[in-house]
Amino acid sequence: MKLLRVGPVGAERPALLDASGALRDLSGLVPDIDGALLADEGKLTRLRTAAASGELPRLDAAGLRTGPPVARIGKIVCIGLNYHDHARETGAAPPAEPILFMKAPDTVVGPDDTVLVPRDSVKTDWEVELAVVIGRTARYLETDAQALAAVAGYAVAHDVSERAFQIERGGQWDKGKNCETFNPLGPWLVTADEVPDPQNLGLRLWVNGDLKQDGTTAEQIFPVAEAVRYVSRFMPLYPGDIINTGTPSGVALGHPDPKPYLRAGDVVELEIDGLGRQRQELKGA
Amino acid sequence: MKLLRVGPVGAERPALLDASGALRDLSGLVPDIDGALLADEGKLTRLRTAAASGELPRLDAAGLRTGPPVARIGKIVCIGLNYHDHARETGAAPPAEPILFMKAPDTVVGPDDTVLVPRDSVKTDWEVELAVVIGRTARYLETDAQALAAVAGYAVAHDVSERAFQIERGGQWDKGKNCETFNPLGPWLVTADEVPDPQNLGLRLWVNGDLKQDGTTAEQIFPVAEAVRYVSRFMPLYPGDIINTGTPSGVALGHPDPKPYLRAGDVVELEIDGLGRQRQELKGA
Repeated sequence: MKLLRVGPVGAERPALLDASGALRDLSGLVPDIDGALLADEGKLTRLRTAAASGELPRLDAAGLRTGPPVARIGKIVCIGLNYHDHARETGAAPPAEPILFMKAPDTVVGPDDTVLVPRDSVKTDWEVELAVVIGRTARYLETDAQALAAVAGYAVAHDVSERAFQIERGGQWDKGKNCETFNPLGPWLVTADEVPDPQNLGLRLWVNGDLKQDGTTAEQIFPVAEAVRYVSRFMPLYPGDIINTGTPSGVALGHPDPKPYLRAGDVVELEIDGLGRQRQELKGA
Repeated sequence: MKLLRVGPVGAERPALLDASGALRDLSGLVPDIDGALLADEGKLTRLRTAAASGELPRLDAAGLRTGPPVARIGKIVCIGLNYHDHARETGAAPPAEPILFMKAPDTVVGPDDTVLVPRDSVKTDWEVELAVVIGRTARYLETDAQALAAVAGYAVAHDVSERAFQIERGGQWDKGKNCETFNPLGPWLVTADEVPDPQNLGLRLWVNGDLKQDGTTAEQIFPVAEAVRYVSRFMPLYPGDIINTGTPSGVALGHPDPKPYLRAGDVVELEIDGLGRQRQELKGA
């Protein structure tokens, strides 16, 4: 299933994109798309059955905003430098074990919402990422099979990053990762059954129409199953939590000087095979 | 006011400790103590009036668990190495500007709840901290007065930390700061009007009855107003967000070898002047 949330900020309703590409209203069946739903196999089965019946009410997509596909996200754990090609371009050695940092859930916006360039920012950068949405509590997992069983689905995430804040302002990357609007998510949460191989997905990102990132999750140093397993040994993962699994090469930081950091007026578009496409305009904060 | 939440995990009810030390039930007046309440001056005034009237229903404190005093915390931003004496003991230079890292809200437990030593942990450490609870949205604040106006109140926080995970496991402190149960909070949220000078509070912490930390917020490198103002320039703060403002000297990491890290069976007690006292037993995860 492709689950999504449509409507004004803070008043999104749950919806589904059916096999024919039609938008269907789920608000008669579930209150929202969140950790509680993703942990409830029975309810997910009812949604699948309803979608297959073709009887869900249609929604007119015209003019309808798409919000982030998950409500009430608990935490966002990010894997740093998780692509061989991206580690090379930043001049870093491939990490021996995953680097973890955090984004606050309040950084999340819809896939086509405005992204704000922070005040005093001169190094706002882009990062297309595969987001893993957790559907089952995961604590001290031992095997890849357990890890993949904890995954509810996948989505496109834009891990917007201010490099000066992240690297040049006295320690810990979180400072450049948590600015307002810095985590566009969506358009859809694609359930894991429809993503047979999360290590074979193309990711692409354009700035003002120029292709900047063109990678594949096959380049991940720590694949999804290993990342989930690893994180679960340091902190529990709960339904509705998200792991941003890192970005391939092609970010502004990896360019020769002068690096093409984002400015108000720029347009970023990004997509992952089968997971949909985002488009953000940048504005000043 | 001293606001608190009492009852079983996940089913706490809002309460108030009145001037005579009696526990009073607030559940007839407000649904919970959270960002929405803290942002609502009118409701807070009604609680003050009700408390002064002496007519709020009494609760029997005997056998009643105390939960964290804030529900639905949005994010927890932590200031690293924020005490002159603590920077010295860790061998670090005092930071030129605040170091920021994050704890997920799901690390928060009540002040007397069990703290779990993570599996494979050999360096679980203690940190008594002054927590600042935000009551008003704060974005790009310019002045100390604006910063203090955004503070709803203060609480005791225990920023439990696994030093090997934090420092020796490949980058970014968050990895050792987000283990399950790693942020006991409370017992009370003391509203800011009852904390006339947040830079003159004694903080103490004992392990198995031995005094380990005995500091004062006068030693903070970046005082509360400056910390709030600084954070607000990198990320918005919302009602119900928390800033952990750092720990004074005396942590296990600062001891000569063999450092006295925490083990299952240890008991940690901590307190801050006027903000109450915590007591945790450590158990294996």
